[in-house]
Order: sequence, then C-alpha cells, then structure tokens
Amino acid sequence: MTSIEKYEWVLLSNKDRVKPLAILRTEMPIFGEINGIVAGDLFDDRKALAEAGIHPPLVAGISGTQGEGADSIVLSGGYEDDVDLGDVIIYTGAGGQKNGRQVSDQKLERVNLALAKSKIEHLPVRVTRGHKHKHPLSPAKGYRYAGLYYVDDYWCDKGKSGYKVWRYRLIAEKTDSLDYLVKEPSGEYELPKRKQTTGNRIVRDYQKAKNVKAWYQFQCQVCGLAIETSAGLYAEAAHIKPLGKPHNGPDIESNILCLCPNHHVMFDNGGFAIDDNLNLIGINGKLNELKKHRISAEFIQYHRDHYLKNTE
Amino acid sequence: MTSIEKYEWVLLSNKDRVKPLAILRTEMPIFGEINGIVAGDLFDDRKALAEAGIHPPLVAGISGTQGEGADSIVLSGGYEDDVDLGDVIIYTGAGGQKNGRQVSDQKLERVNLALAKSKIEHLPVRVTRGHKHKHPLSPAKGYRYAGLYYVDDYWCDKGKSGYKVWRYRLIAEKTDSLDYLVKEPSGEYELPKRKQTTGNRIVRDYQKAKNVKAWYQFQCQVCGLAIETSAGLYAEAAHIKPLGKPHNGPDIESNILCLCPNHHVMFDNGGFAIDDNLNLIGINGKLNELKKHRISAEFIQYHRDHYLKNTE
Repeated sequence: MTSIEKYEWVLLSNKDRVKPLAILRTEMPIFGEINGIVAGDLFDDRKALAEAGIHPPLVAGISGTQGEGADSIVLSGGYEDDVDLGDVIIYTGAGGQKNGRQVSDQKLERVNLALAKSKIEHLPVRVTRGHKHKHPLSPAKGYRYAGLYYVDDYWCDKGKSGYKVWRYRLIAEKTDSLDYLVKEPSGEYELPKRKQTTGNRIVRDYQKAKNVKAWYQFQCQVCGLAIETSAGLYAEAAHIKPLGKPHNGPDIESNILCLCPNHHVMFDNGGFAIDDNLNLIGINGKLNELKKHRISAEFIQYHRDHYLKNTE
Repeated sequence: MTSIEKYEWVLLSNKDRVKPLAILRTEMPIFGEINGIVAGDLFDDRKALAEAGIHPPLVAGISGTQGEGADSIVLSGGYEDDVDLGDVIIYTGAGGQKNGRQVSDQKLERVNLALAKSKIEHLPVRVTRGHKHKHPLSPAKGYRYAGLYYVDDYWCDKGKSGYKVWRYRLIAEKTDSLDYLVKEPSGEYELPKRKQTTGNRIVRDYQKAKNVKAWYQFQCQVCGLAIETSAGLYAEAAHIKPLGKPHNGPDIESNILCLCPNHHVMFDNGGFAIDDNLNLIGINGKLNELKKHRISAEFIQYHRDHYLKNTE
C-alpha cells in the first residue's frame, strides 16, 4: 500500500468529473493540532476539512498509514457500531462494507492497523464530527473539529451485523492532563513541537523518540528484544537525563535510549546504570550503540550519578 | 523497623512530659483522601493533623513504610533542598540531620524507601504545608492540607550542605486528569475505593492489584521475572477483561494478572492470549496460577475473543 494518496481526476467530460480521492499532501501524516484551528471550528465539507490539513482523505474515515500511525478520524455516521460518549468515543475500523452495510469481516490492516499503531505509539488523533453522525455534538451541516483524542484501547468485536469489526476507544485529551503521569512507560508522544505550556506539561518532541526507535528497529539497546503486538513492534524511548524540573534534560536523540518496557522501568528506577564505556552497572552486559546515535556521555553520567543507589 | 509508631509517653513530671512520637494507628498506611477533608483545610498543629488521619506521625515529615509505600508528607521548612513550585514539589528525604542541619548522607531506606515505593506503585501521597515552610501557599500558622500528589521521580543529589540527599518530584493530582492515560503500564493505583467520578476516571481498587502482586511476589505469571528497582520489586497488574467502557471488566483479583511490563504490553495489545487450560497462544508457555488466585475463565475467554488478531 502506498502511503501517498494521490490526487486523481478522471475527466470524462465537464459533467462527469469524478471526485478526487484526497488532496495531495506530503507522505508523512502530520500529528497534533493544526496551526490556527481549534476545537469547535466548522468546515463546509470534506474538501474544506482536507484543505485545512485536519483530515486529508476526502472519503476515508481514517487518515494515516500503518508505518506511521493514524493522525485523524472523521465520524460520519457510516458505521452502526460507533458509540459517541463525548469525551469517550468507541470508533469502528474501516472496511467490509458495501452500499453502507457491513457485509464481511474487517481486518487489522492498512488504516485499521494505523489507528492501532497510534495507540501503542501514543500519538494524538484529530477527531471531527460530521453532520450525518447523529449526536448532540455534531454540527447541523458540514463538519466540526472536536480536538485531539488518544487511542487507549483497540480490539475486535462482533458488530451488529454479525461480522467482525475492529473497534477503538478514544479519549479526549484534556488541556491540563498531567503529562508527567502519561509520559512513561507507555506513552512517549505528544504534540510535534516542543514547547512549555501552562501547568506541568512537557510537550514531547515525538519525532526524536521515533527516530531513535527506528534506528534500532524497536530492539532494546540492553537486551535486543523488540516487543511484538498486533499493532506492530513496540519499544519505549527512555530519556537518560530526565525531562522536566529540576533535571531539565533535553528532548534530543543523544539523550534518548530505545528500551523494552522492562529495561525502561529498571533504568528509570535505579535498576541499572551505564558507565563511560557503555558497560552496564547493576546488571550484566553492554549497551548496544549505533554509530549514528552518539549517546551523550554527560547525560549517561548524570543518570549514573543520580539514579544508581550505590552502596549505602 | 516496625511499621507501627507507638504512642509513647515518658512522664518524668508534669512539667517534663515528653511529646508522643505518633498517634497510635493501625499498621497499614491509608492512601488517598480522608473522608470529609479537602485541600485547603487548616489544622492547628501536628496533633490535629494526625488525629484527622492526614499525617499520623507527629514529628517525621514522611509517613509510611517501605513495604507499603508512603501515604503522606509534610513540608515543614526543615530541609534546605526542598523546592516548592505549587503543583510540582521537589521534596527532600529524611535523615542525616542534627540540630536542623544536614551533617551526613541520606540513605534510600525506611521512609525514604517508602516514598520511592509510592512512585513505582503509583500511590497517591497526601501533602501538607506547615507555617514554617516559607511559601505563598503555606498557612500563617498551623498546617494546610494541599491535596493528593504523585511521586513521579526520585533520585539522589548532592545537597546544599554537600551531603547526599534523596529527592522526590511530586506532581499534584488534577481532578479531571485522564485516568485512562495514567493507568498503564506504570501506574495501577488510585484512590482505595472504587467509585465512578465525573468524567472519564475509573478509580482503581488498588488493594486488589496489590493482593495479586503480593501473591506472586511480583513475579510475572508468564515468564517468572520480577523487575528489580532501587525502590523494591516491581510488577504490573493487568486486567484481563479491561476496565471502562465498553468492556466494563470488574476490578477484582480473578480479573487481574501479575505481569512484567513486557508481557503486560503484549497482553494488552494482542501479543498473546490464554486458552482454557492456561496455555499461552501466540507465544510459548503456560500461565502460572496459584490456587488461591482463581482466574476467571470467562474473562480469559473475553480477552482471547477480542484481542488476539487470529488469522486474517
């Protein structure tokens, strides 16, 4: 499957122009808020929604790719298994429909897999409600952007039709949610720009964490294990010198390790440290390092000095 | 160290009565809010604070035990390394002082270990500011309860004195923080009573999760690994049939597994499932089950039916 959705016109005649499938865009999904657009903003139609950058596909309900994750969804009333509770949405995956009815099982692939990827990578998903989606929060016409949500669960179910559907639980992001609490070990991604917001939020630069994990192909730099899930391989980005006060470590690759969840918990809680030669202290072994990674010796020492319990 | 702090009177004469060390209380720390007391409430002195159940020790700044965790702290101005930023507090551990001055290194033991345990067990800590703690949020006299905080980091540092101190970053709980996001894999504990609050919070019954982990001594029921940290052994409580809509699994032992973080991520994300004989599906092995655990076959089947990707 290509990750670019092409801008296709089939010009049969002026009258027979077929609608384009998507507004041409860059290959990579763009996660998080779109500059200048806030929850509540209205859009006349899918084309306006796509041109604004909120949801690039013109027909599909889910935007994204299985390699990157899903960046956006639209509730259009087309799936009978959707449940919209406002801050909690149970959203149905794509596929298996004909003429608006579920006629076969859905599969965890393509955009369905993309939305599952968003869960394990803790990527924010833009949510939009369309007028055909029957709900108090839907607009009378057109589309209303509802803000960022996170996928916190996905599973398969038997739909009302009797066929298998993939379902996702999405939870609205709250502006004063404690980022400290959501950051680890399961969630490493926030808005794509690093900026300090009001309160205690540290907005992660998800691109950095993503880079490091891609370099190691999700394999733990301590034990080599890459966790297998139905949404793809999983690993966690551990900051060596922690973010936030009073450590104020930077959100950059030289301060990030790709670790499995077990070694991440150990690393953050004095289970082991790393010496100047990358040998492990407290457990056996040596840290795997790719040349391009260039882990900072200063941050490694900071962690060693402050987290290893030593002999007391 | 005993976990009961005794109510001791040494009556030398009416004038020489030595102050008691603590109000006699039950052995187990009590976590979370105390009925009828809210953030902002004032108390005349430490005795009143202890009698209210907010902070049982009459002198010590940290309440709790290394086996259970720390349930409460008081900021009394006695530690020069404290930093109070309101919703974020950098709190200093206990010990190493003489006549109010740091004269030796602190150790990660006793109440210091208890506060670290609160971090890895994600237990809420009651925070109180005393009048001697110089801060805008401190009361002019007596003590002001400030609400629940969570320890999200602990490390050792060189204090202003030059001696080693253990430091803890505590973050204020927000009433509408998304419990879905904080629940896993690192945090499993919330208030000790299970009740539905406004919004999306599922309040966990931490006692159930704690029971299961204690039964298995923090050893993963899949691989037998117990994660070692400087705060003690660590494991995670995975709900088999998930909590929250639309699954609405119960928060009871028969619906909880003790897993290492790696197997928890796999379990929650279709990495493996369990058959009726407790054999694992998707990976090799068999689930370890203690007789007293009585894992529910119904919940195991629910998980298997909804999370395993099967052949698609």
